[in-house]
Amino acid sequence: MKFATLPNGTLDGKLILVSKDLLTAVDVSSIAPNLLHAIQNWETVESDLNAVYEQLNTRKASEIFDFDPSVCLAPMPRSPQWLDASAFTNHGRLMEQAFNTDPIENFDTIPVMYQGASDDFQGPTADMPMPSEEDGIDFEGEFGVIMSEVPMSTSAEKAVEHIRLIVQINDWSLRALGPREMNSGFGFLQAKPSSSFAPVAVTPDELGDAWKNGRVNMHLHVSWNGQRFGEPHGSEMNFSFPQLIAHAARSRRLTAGCVLGSGTVSNVSRAAGSACISERRVIEKIDLGEIKTGFMRFGDSVRMQAKYDDGSDGPFGVIEQRVVENSSAG
Amino acid sequence: MKFATLPNGTLDGKLILVSKDLLTAVDVSSIAPNLLHAIQNWETVESDLNAVYEQLNTRKASEIFDFDPSVCLAPMPRSPQWLDASAFTNHGRLMEQAFNTDPIENFDTIPVMYQGASDDFQGPTADMPMPSEEDGIDFEGEFGVIMSEVPMSTSAEKAVEHIRLIVQINDWSLRALGPREMNSGFGFLQAKPSSSFAPVAVTPDELGDAWKNGRVNMHLHVSWNGQRFGEPHGSEMNFSFPQLIAHAARSRRLTAGCVLGSGTVSNVSRAAGSACISERRVIEKIDLGEIKTGFMRFGDSVRMQAKYDDGSDGPFGVIEQRVVENSSAG
Repeated sequence: MKFATLPNGTLDGKLILVSKDLLTAVDVSSIAPNLLHAIQNWETVESDLNAVYEQLNTRKASEIFDFDPSVCLAPMPRSPQWLDASAFTNHGRLMEQAFNTDPIENFDTIPVMYQGASDDFQGPTADMPMPSEEDGIDFEGEFGVIMSEVPMSTSAEKAVEHIRLIVQINDWSLRALGPREMNSGFGFLQAKPSSSFAPVAVTPDELGDAWKNGRVNMHLHVSWNGQRFGEPHGSEMNFSFPQLIAHAARSRRLTAGCVLGSGTVSNVSRAAGSACISERRVIEKIDLGEIKTGFMRFGDSVRMQAKYDDGSDGPFGVIEQRVVENSSAG
Repeated sequence: MKFATLPNGTLDGKLILVSKDLLTAVDVSSIAPNLLHAIQNWETVESDLNAVYEQLNTRKASEIFDFDPSVCLAPMPRSPQWLDASAFTNHGRLMEQAFNTDPIENFDTIPVMYQGASDDFQGPTADMPMPSEEDGIDFEGEFGVIMSEVPMSTSAEKAVEHIRLIVQINDWSLRALGPREMNSGFGFLQAKPSSSFAPVAVTPDELGDAWKNGRVNMHLHVSWNGQRFGEPHGSEMNFSFPQLIAHAARSRRLTAGCVLGSGTVSNVSRAAGSACISERRVIEKIDLGEIKTGFMRFGDSVRMQAKYDDGSDGPFGVIEQRVVENSSAG
């Protein structure tokens, strides 16, 4: 199944099902008012949702309408937890090499992960207000999963059963604020504004062979102000999503609807480009001896879309966002 | 006003108002079904809640019942964000001295803060399942605030207006897991299981003179297995709650209902004792040359209660919890 969320004045929005071809949709809020509710009550609502999804794809459902991804909110505008890993260790190794820092202890065997804000997820076309261009405004293209309730100390073997949906994420980052927060040992907080999501969240079966080894085996195509930036492939993730879930649940219960991210998609091959500016910058430092690329400016845009290995469009739809100057401050 | 939450089968529980003397209560779920809803709709519900609170304290309200804190959930069982600082810098300085580590950069001028799980807050008497005694099971006594919506980049001067409620917290910690997570730079995740709360959340006016300089000027009395452990005073907090809120909102909006914690209450005077075991251990290391105190074992209990300077009981009620072995794992 493919899910999206339309604004309806509530914090969680209104749940719709989107057809396999992403062209049409149907309101399923009478079955589950929003996606969080659907995940919390999956056993109760799954078969009804599946029935409507089948009717939608065979055009037998009533009240089918055109799907307009540009008006969508994040599929789940607020979630119980947002846990973000750095599971493509190539990215971390590049950072260490460029800045000549000590390797993170057990980086290859124990995932690194922080918890970020999950109460204010942004939709695929939302303008992103940021306080200052001096903060090193960066995008970060990721894949992620949304889970059913995961009991404390669930193993990686069992964790795979808790993956309900797969999502595509832009994990906005403020790079100038990161080093101090990492050096403090307390981790990222100011360096991580609210994240944004592609419009469509999909059940794993929708990916077919592209969901393999607990990884999203697709290219994540990223462009910045219309210029190609990279299309790294999700298969090089060093920890699988089930391994990451087991790490996250080591000493806590994850209530239904938590979101777990892969960290920026990153490939060893330089030809793949990057899914975040900071990675291009460290590659420039390593390969060219100097950093040439700056961070985003107000008015800049970023576009992200997953594609299958055959070049066809992925199931998540497109993230296309613009950075703007924050004007809300008190 | 004083609020508490009773179980009713929902994730957020049922809101009640508790009398000033903590002896009686009244169901106010017809005004706001739960505390999160009340905070989200404060302007709409505040005057009605105040009217009932006055009736409760003058015993004119209908359907007054005896308040039983032992059956309470956390005042807000789930919150949009749980942000925990380490605002008593004495605690951090002791850690550095004992382990001979480098001081955290700008520790006296910029708060350190991580984000923890806010989807599974535990009540004041809940048994705490933990995966292993080898993890260094520790309690951590804190004060905290619950906020209205805080716009991005709100100043400390304006942040004080967003403090709706004050709470007392037990920030459970697994000390054996902390150093690796700090060294990774990504901060605490496995080292911080779900936190627990005293039963009563109060508006700042309830504290009278004990709410001063954006700090809770009360002793936090902590005992472990019935033995006095410490009663450090909240006035020594090096950053005020409004300063901490401004730090948290630097690059993100805090939606209504976020909880911000002070970090373990810690005083320079050794006579005050400590509000967490790890601090006693580092004091032993510094003063005695060796660590004598171990961490908690399954079956151990901890009790926390805030008291006014005149020795009278604080308004939050008592946290009294037992550590048990986790048995839920998959």
